Amino acid sequence: MKHPRIDLNCDMGEGFGMWVIGDGVDEEILPMISSANIATGFHAGDPNIMHRIVRLAKTHGVRIGAHPGFRDLVGFGRRRIVAPADELVNDMIYQLGALREFARLNGLRIQHFKPHGALYMQVAVDEELSRTMIRALQQIEPTLLLMVMESSITYKVAKEMGQPVVREFYADRDYDTTGSIVFTRRVGRLDPDIVAQKVLKACVEGRVRTVDGDDIDIGFDSVCIHSDTPGALDIVKTTRALLDANGIQISPCSDFIE
Amino acid sequence: MKHPRIDLNCDMGEGFGMWVIGDGVDEEILPMISSANIATGFHAGDPNIMHRIVRLAKTHGVRIGAHPGFRDLVGFGRRRIVAPADELVNDMIYQLGALREFARLNGLRIQHFKPHGALYMQVAVDEELSRTMIRALQQIEPTLLLMVMESSITYKVAKEMGQPVVREFYADRDYDTTGSIVFTRRVGRLDPDIVAQKVLKACVEGRVRTVDGDDIDIGFDSVCIHSDTPGALDIVKTTRALLDANGIQISPCSDFIE
Amino acid sequence: MKHPRIDLNCDMGEGFGMWVIGDGVDEEILPMISSANIATGFHAGDPNIMHRIVRLAKTHGVRIGAHPGFRDLVGFGRRRIVAPADELVNDMIYQLGALREFARLNGLRIQHFKPHGALYMQVAVDEELSRTMIRALQQIEPTLLLMVMESSITYKVAKEMGQPVVREFYADRDYDTTGSIVFTRRVGRLDPDIVAQKVLKACVEGRVRTVDGDDIDIGFDSVCIHSDTPGALDIVKTTRALLDANGIQISPCSDFIE
Amino acid sequence: MKHPRIDLNCDMGEGFGMWVIGDGVDEEILPMISSANIATGFHAGDPNIMHRIVRLAKTHGVRIGAHPGFRDLVGFGRRRIVAPADELVNDMIYQLGALREFARLNGLRIQHFKPHGALYMQVAVDEELSRTMIRALQQIEPTLLLMVMESSITYKVAKEMGQPVVREFYADRDYDTTGSIVFTRRVGRLDPDIVAQKVLKACVEGRVRTVDGDDIDIGFDSVCIHSDTPGALDIVKTTRALLDANGIQISPCSDFIE
Repeated sequence: MKHPRIDLNCDMGEGFGMWVIGDGVDEEILPMISSANIATGFHAGDPNIMHRIVRLAKTHGVRIGAHPGFRDLVGFGRRRIVAPADELVNDMIYQLGALREFARLNGLRIQHFKPHGALYMQVAVDEELSRTMIRALQQIEPTLLLMVMESSITYKVAKEMGQPVVREFYADRDYDTTGSIVFTRRVGRLDPDIVAQKVLKACVEGRVRTVDGDDIDIGFDSVCIHSDTPGALDIVKTTRALLDANGIQISPCSDFIE
Repeated sequence: MKHPRIDLNCDMGEGFGMWVIGDGVDEEILPMISSANIATGFHAGDPNIMHRIVRLAKTHGVRIGAHPGFRDLVGFGRRRIVAPADELVNDMIYQLGALREFARLNGLRIQHFKPHGALYMQVAVDEELSRTMIRALQQIEPTLLLMVMESSITYKVAKEMGQPVVREFYADRDYDTTGSIVFTRRVGRLDPDIVAQKVLKACVEGRVRTVDGDDIDIGFDSVCIHSDTPGALDIVKTTRALLDANGIQISPCSDFIE
Repeated sequence: MKHPRIDLNCDMGEGFGMWVIGDGVDEEILPMISSANIATGFHAGDPNIMHRIVRLAKTHGVRIGAHPGFRDLVGFGRRRIVAPADELVNDMIYQLGALREFARLNGLRIQHFKPHGALYMQVAVDEELSRTMIRALQQIEPTLLLMVMESSITYKVAKEMGQPVVREFYADRDYDTTGSIVFTRRVGRLDPDIVAQKVLKACVEGRVRTVDGDDIDIGFDSVCIHSDTPGALDIVKTTRALLDANGIQISPCSDFIE
Repeated sequence: MKHPRIDLNCDMGEGFGMWVIGDGVDEEILPMISSANIATGFHAGDPNIMHRIVRLAKTHGVRIGAHPGFRDLVGFGRRRIVAPADELVNDMIYQLGALREFARLNGLRIQHFKPHGALYMQVAVDEELSRTMIRALQQIEPTLLLMVMESSITYKVAKEMGQPVVREFYADRDYDTTGSIVFTRRVGRLDPDIVAQKVLKACVEGRVRTVDGDDIDIGFDSVCIHSDTPGALDIVKTTRALLDANGIQISPCSDFIE
């Protein structure tokens, strides 16, 4: 067994005002995961939702992370905005701090940091942006866990600069042969059993089938399931049940990443 | 002499993107003041501006405070938004945290907290909002200095709840006989000498002339000059020079408020 | 029978980007109504949604109206913003024009105009705002139908100024004895049969039961059902079926208001 | 003389709420130009400003055009947002309509259409976007003048599709040897005399000096001066005076473009 213990992370709080994302089932998903990526207001999330999710995470002992995105509510942060690295990093610092204040108010600390959507994809391929972002994190909190794909430039830069990383496996995204996910603005409905089996295989074998039909090695510490994927609740339930049934322990990444 | 030592506070960073406020002279005003109220993005300010002003304040040894407003860029936070107290306080926590992260990045701490514009005026007359806001501050940081008018409900509630306060004197606003300022969305050009004399009188005598022509006692620890008042730079220069000439020392409120 | 023929209006397109409102069932509700109030971007709605709803309305022969709100996405336009009448009217003109362009692109005309949420409620009690708004409508299009409550100041001002009005009956809101609705930011789940019976009674008798338990006369030309009320689709279906079964014809208000 | 008669266009109304752009001198620039490109709210401009500028244009007999941008206030529309063509075109239709309503209210018609900043640059190089945009314009108003650079793909597509175009000459931007301008987010202070001479040369000879020092032919119908270029007022004044002194007549492009 490659991963007898694994983190399970999910985006949380991705509504805005009265609007919810996907099926609006954060309250039901949250108790089943170990790490919550909380939207911080630029692509989704607002102060009321952030506060509610932080409290909910506290109640369930789920660790929290900042999930900053591009300043793009209408595009849900899934449209790239072409801007200088330092400006984008300032946007991330702002959002990280906003979440940290709700954590502070509730006596929690921020476990991890994970850019959202198109910003995540941009950081993954942009060395200057990765470096600028990690430089800021190192000034703010050198032990803050950064969630990345192993195939990304961000991963390499973080390793080089000494920022601790959590490598992610995307349960509900397709992989290409480079080990990168195929980015999309909207995902269709997936079969929960297929997703769960994909995650189990990754945990047991450390491998994933690509869109080309080959299996590739995939290094990861945390499984990500998007809460806006249609039927996300069923996917999380089914995946969690299958992992439980196979004796794979779900624990927050900060418990096993140094 | 009532006030041989006084704080001088000014709103800073009230631009947005390429737009500046007033004459865009933050860089020139900042070295003359002791406390900078930094706009935190909802009514003005953006992450780039916030970062720039925090660094500038560090360079000049000026203390920084969070200056959160209503979510109202187009109205510059000078239009009241009717909303529940807990929602408005969540907005303030979000903004406070955003600024604190830039402070953290630069090795500074937040000295004070001061709502902006219509939010400041609303808190001043709204006991529930004052109480909800101060309750949050006490959970986050019970020693954070809260800027208020002595005539406000906020002052009374803060005193009762034990949150330390900095009472403000508004150099560029008119007073009514209750010791409250006359709120306005836009202020016309003022004579810097008249403003400076008004501040000197307040420092020496602890009194201000009201719109009705009477002098009233006014309790304060900090003098506020709005940087968006037309000709703000001259007002600050003239006032600072007159205070200096009269041996009144300008120091950050945290140096003399326990 | 008071109303053998009645208009049935519903708010449409109240999502934003990826977010939908209520159950996201505009496509199913729209064919059952005669007038669609289309959100115009300030409190909800975006250009893509507006375009989609305009086309859908064209397909089903449903008349369209502009449904402008306060500039308040996070509050869904249900929080009052205190601002001068002329500024609020400029916001309405902007939004009306935005919708009109999509109508023009699709060869449709705008049938009616109806402010949303807190703006609707503010206009209803504010004579200056009513007058400023109607003055603008009269310069733009003196025959544009204005949706109002008969109990509102807007109704009186429109009558006096000669702007044609469509009086609304709110199927899913409670009435007080003045014939005004009890405003609320969120509405709970309602029994579709009770709502349908309330509408039938209003159509047959021209009367509604108030929160105090009395029946009052209510003058109206159009029945409004909010699409964000939980279970809106069932409410519309049930109401439409009951009206059909009782021989009450549903037609757009412009067919019978001169 | 290549151009005895030429249009002079300038961006107008590029403030937001209390914020102005550049020197805030729209009122002084406007009477000297023949065509005003009015910001329509996504990158700059708001309903109050739009209304004010439309009235001002009417007073001075200046023709108006819609100047829609990316939904990016903080970036002033100078940051590219990567999005599907049809979504960007919906954004443009929305903004065009918003301005048209203020024109309608004031008895004016829209003379021209000109995307702003990064959107203008994107359209210029993107055939699908050009085609989708022009297809929409043709459904809305096939005679609406589209402002473009002769070197752009937009120009070719418009010619092919039969949409009338106004070719622009950029007084305050540098040209490369392809006849395209060198895009920049911020422009420094320019010498008004040099700009004026550049415009005069273009009008007399139909040629411009490139950044490489060569002269190239440049086809144009309208001279653009950006109102946010520092010292814009002096540039417009000096340019206008030099053109007047050389007998070059300034008239709106709709007077000489069929």
